[in-house]
Amino acid sequence: MTNPHGTAVPSSGALRPLPAARLDPAGLLGAWQARNAEATLPHCVAQLEAHGNLDNLRRIVDDIRDAPAVFAGYWFADTDVHKTLEAALWQQTEPRFVADTVRLLEQAQDHDGYLVSYFQTATHRDRQWAELSSSHEMYTAGHLFQAAVAAARTTSGDSQRLVGVARRFADLLVRRFGAGGTDAVDGHPEVETALVELYRVTGHQAYLDLAARFIDLRGRGLLGPESRFHQRHYYQDHVPVRDADEVTGHAVRQVYLAAGAVDVAVETGDTKLLKAAERLWESAVTTKTYITGGHGSRHRDEAFGDPYELPPDRAYAETCAAIGSFHWAWRLLLATGRSRYADEMERLLYNGIAASTALEGTAFFYSNPLQLRTGHDGSDEDAPGQRLPWYTCACCPPNLARLMASLHTYAATGGPEGLQLHLYTRGTFTAAGHTVEVATEYPWDGTVAVAVTETTGGRWTLALRIPDWCTDARVSDPTAVIADGYAHLERTWQVGDRVELVMAMPPRLVTAHPRVDAVRGTAALTRGPIVYCLEHADLPEPLTGVVFEDLQLDAAAPIAVVHDGHPIAPVALAATVTVRTAATAALYQPIEQATPPATVTATVLVVPYYLWANRGPGPMRVWIPLAPQER
Amino acid sequence: MTNPHGTAVPSSGALRPLPAARLDPAGLLGAWQARNAEATLPHCVAQLEAHGNLDNLRRIVDDIRDAPAVFAGYWFADTDVHKTLEAALWQQTEPRFVADTVRLLEQAQDHDGYLVSYFQTATHRDRQWAELSSSHEMYTAGHLFQAAVAAARTTSGDSQRLVGVARRFADLLVRRFGAGGTDAVDGHPEVETALVELYRVTGHQAYLDLAARFIDLRGRGLLGPESRFHQRHYYQDHVPVRDADEVTGHAVRQVYLAAGAVDVAVETGDTKLLKAAERLWESAVTTKTYITGGHGSRHRDEAFGDPYELPPDRAYAETCAAIGSFHWAWRLLLATGRSRYADEMERLLYNGIAASTALEGTAFFYSNPLQLRTGHDGSDEDAPGQRLPWYTCACCPPNLARLMASLHTYAATGGPEGLQLHLYTRGTFTAAGHTVEVATEYPWDGTVAVAVTETTGGRWTLALRIPDWCTDARVSDPTAVIADGYAHLERTWQVGDRVELVMAMPPRLVTAHPRVDAVRGTAALTRGPIVYCLEHADLPEPLTGVVFEDLQLDAAAPIAVVHDGHPIAPVALAATVTVRTAATAALYQPIEQATPPATVTATVLVVPYYLWANRGPGPMRVWIPLAPQER
Repeated sequence: MTNPHGTAVPSSGALRPLPAARLDPAGLLGAWQARNAEATLPHCVAQLEAHGNLDNLRRIVDDIRDAPAVFAGYWFADTDVHKTLEAALWQQTEPRFVADTVRLLEQAQDHDGYLVSYFQTATHRDRQWAELSSSHEMYTAGHLFQAAVAAARTTSGDSQRLVGVARRFADLLVRRFGAGGTDAVDGHPEVETALVELYRVTGHQAYLDLAARFIDLRGRGLLGPESRFHQRHYYQDHVPVRDADEVTGHAVRQVYLAAGAVDVAVETGDTKLLKAAERLWESAVTTKTYITGGHGSRHRDEAFGDPYELPPDRAYAETCAAIGSFHWAWRLLLATGRSRYADEMERLLYNGIAASTALEGTAFFYSNPLQLRTGHDGSDEDAPGQRLPWYTCACCPPNLARLMASLHTYAATGGPEGLQLHLYTRGTFTAAGHTVEVATEYPWDGTVAVAVTETTGGRWTLALRIPDWCTDARVSDPTAVIADGYAHLERTWQVGDRVELVMAMPPRLVTAHPRVDAVRGTAALTRGPIVYCLEHADLPEPLTGVVFEDLQLDAAAPIAVVHDGHPIAPVALAATVTVRTAATAALYQPIEQATPPATVTATVLVVPYYLWANRGPGPMRVWIPLAPQER
Repeated sequence: MTNPHGTAVPSSGALRPLPAARLDPAGLLGAWQARNAEATLPHCVAQLEAHGNLDNLRRIVDDIRDAPAVFAGYWFADTDVHKTLEAALWQQTEPRFVADTVRLLEQAQDHDGYLVSYFQTATHRDRQWAELSSSHEMYTAGHLFQAAVAAARTTSGDSQRLVGVARRFADLLVRRFGAGGTDAVDGHPEVETALVELYRVTGHQAYLDLAARFIDLRGRGLLGPESRFHQRHYYQDHVPVRDADEVTGHAVRQVYLAAGAVDVAVETGDTKLLKAAERLWESAVTTKTYITGGHGSRHRDEAFGDPYELPPDRAYAETCAAIGSFHWAWRLLLATGRSRYADEMERLLYNGIAASTALEGTAFFYSNPLQLRTGHDGSDEDAPGQRLPWYTCACCPPNLARLMASLHTYAATGGPEGLQLHLYTRGTFTAAGHTVEVATEYPWDGTVAVAVTETTGGRWTLALRIPDWCTDARVSDPTAVIADGYAHLERTWQVGDRVELVMAMPPRLVTAHPRVDAVRGTAALTRGPIVYCLEHADLPEPLTGVVFEDLQLDAAAPIAVVHDGHPIAPVALAATVTVRTAATAALYQPIEQATPPATVTATVLVVPYYLWANRGPGPMRVWIPLAPQER
């Protein structure tokens, strides 16, 4: 394949996606991708059938456009179909679902190209394009376009017809909202990045122009008057994208918009816009990002909070926001080549994103809190105590499916100049005739062995990312130059050449910036890229009867790495905790009565955060209160 | 007046409301009541006119019941009229508004007694009683009944006709929902306490029976299937009131329901129900109450959170919830005579409730956070940086007006056996021929002088509450018996007798229970019943340039009491703070890099929390991070 097989394939930038990559299911990322094919994708297809998303489209085809609305789910229910379709195309599985759905979409599409089934029913038809702040019509179009891009990049068969469907809808958008048309933007960004991608696979300039136009029109109040519930910042319509310096409002919308801004910037050579996206990203990671990479501190509005407002218990950290952040970081990595963006992708992947899926791959979190208390009321879908098989608003599961299906495309980049490895996992990666095979137990072990299995000859550079969490990285080749977050190995590579990167992976105690009030006096345990958590299911005998919230971490005690012996964690950490139960039940007391004495002391295993809630409901916390140090 | 002049006048219980009480505007509570008459009430009347609440009713009168709906505001907009009317009746001001509105309500009422203007329009008429989970029809009826109760207890003139209006609506409820009628409850409790009060002024047993029936029917799932957004616990419909042991769901609904349960319990002699209300209250104050008395930890659903989930920044602490909690505590005080309930009323009054109103009495908070950060986005009505003159959902301002208008009725109780003083402020209080005059600068000073100005002779007991915050109370009469939170002085009182209670009022550093994660490592400053806060407006010269969140409190330094010298605080506290600015902007870092060194040290005034945001927008915090202690 010369057409790079992945999402976001810019025509320029510091780094280039690979034309070929394969993950080995014996590695963690490959295992996740295999689980996606075997469990998550079939589950999504079945849920679309069970929840009526496909029937919504079938009713349009069955010529009942003029019948009163019978519609299942939210008005943007088509997007779950599009995302599942995109996932199946990247994964190259579920051929029957793909074929049927492409045909269904072709048939459901109106003659003018319109294709949002909710607004194609007689009851809602007159509302087309009339409620852009909430209708999600372009958001829905965007997900259709991304499915078509996946078809264009993965197949040459019938599903290519999906590109035609997408183009007809995109052409309608161009006619209606392009230069000279209506000045408007959609309340939920997504179409911007999708239009740029559709431009990349079709070469049709009008799509790029429209995406650029949407970026330019945002922040001018086109989404209408402010209401009690949604102010302009909710939609990122309060300030032009180029002038924004703080992530704000609905987190998914913000990160999707930012990803689209990078796409537009790269394709149009708009360095000011790229700088704005980098500035926005900087503000996010220094003031509004969870240690898991999660975004969104508030359930209300599913939104970013104020700077340093990062409560672990009410973290919204929506799965879709984490996925959107991953795509944003990936685009910035490609544009700039800066390792920090790959660091962020890694943090998101192993923590904020991984946590959302149950071990078996068929239950999901929508919000991803970093703490669950004893007595938590998990009856609301927005804060359940365990992963659910599906949601009333089911945006997250198929979003996970499409990310996991395309996971092999984010691990490495390259071209004639060489190969850059960003995410370490077992797999095979090819760029311009150079192929390497990676063997590693990462993220459980810090040793990464890279073997060259194909080369076109001549000098080229193998670049190996040194993660930001790593303070002790050694490369087996003494000529390696470590700079800008990568070990660069330039030589005339021969087939059979091997190089080894060894990253020390000690357990670490991490604290938050003192301005993060919500986790003052606590620490999180990490090892390598993995954030750990204390979970009720791991409490040993002397602790099972205590109130989970009375546990404190002894920061002075050594923390051991446990490679075997945990039922679900490949690597657990063993920490020392004490129990301190307040003498009084009073909520508030004079300071002199405030510190209860330690009673029980015990060793407890802490597990990767992403594995929590796989053993029944119960309290959990990433940020563990620190026991007062003995003096 | 033999008819006690106040809200909640039970026919039995440990304590009895007074027939006569007067607050002196030279005291703080009297000043608040006077401000209510002079500023808040006229403001509310004007806002009702400006926002169309009165026009909604006028359109019904003008025989346009059959015209399509033109309706201003929420479907429960009538309640703002009813609450303002109730306030004007307690305050005995705004006679023209009272007369006009009573006539308007009489005229707008349907022949069958129905009176909710939104559902009296042609467009909405067929939805009457069809959407009880969200229609607020009985909630609206309840506020009408409470206005009528105020009319019954304060006037003998034309406004007594309001009682007729209320009875006609109440009779409709009895016919429709009484025994033998539909089993139903309203999604928003309020009618329960209102029906009991209407029973108290009319003696009509059917109203009490209906209230008891609503209490019994709640918790049986009558509010319909669960939706994504509102589970049963949101409406307190998940468990029968008698079995509930945790406050949950929408905070205002919960506390209104609990107040109604006490009313029903007292009038029906249902000790099990009273015990349930006390148990629920205990759960609230030990696990889900802010130091200000505020209730509701979540903006989402305006709801209680899990136990110990009490974030200061995202505290919802709705003004109406604080007022409802005050009414709940007042009812429990009357029923049981236990001082803890008066302690809670005091805490609420001077903190959670007082904070909601601006100094000038015409701007209000709906939510009452305990922290506002630098960079706070205050563009949403649910978390503004300053008080607003009115709200899209304007439940809180007229609720404040009716509380302040009836404020004189909560300070003391009594009967032939004597007088019990619960809230200390300048004023005159009479029970069964015993009258005392109270002189004090409370809450700024702990000395309370009580003079007997009238007595029927014979022995009776003067009981003076010893607040829970007070550890050093002295009574000038050595025969005083201090027990159960009161100093009891029993003797044959003579006119001219005086007694003095002196409560030491040192500044105190208070911490929260270790399970309250959100304020770990911080302390609040209090003095007497007043909770203080650090506000940006008070930062002196060396601190004005620093980031507010970098300030830390030196807990070892003495705290001075400043009686004069603050522009708006009658008594400020002077504390020592240091500035610590993290060396790195990184959000997360290894623990060994975590404690920045102190730079500037300065003395700063902290002010009563209730006075915050009266000097322009800016950051504020009740819970101040503690500087690490030097060793």
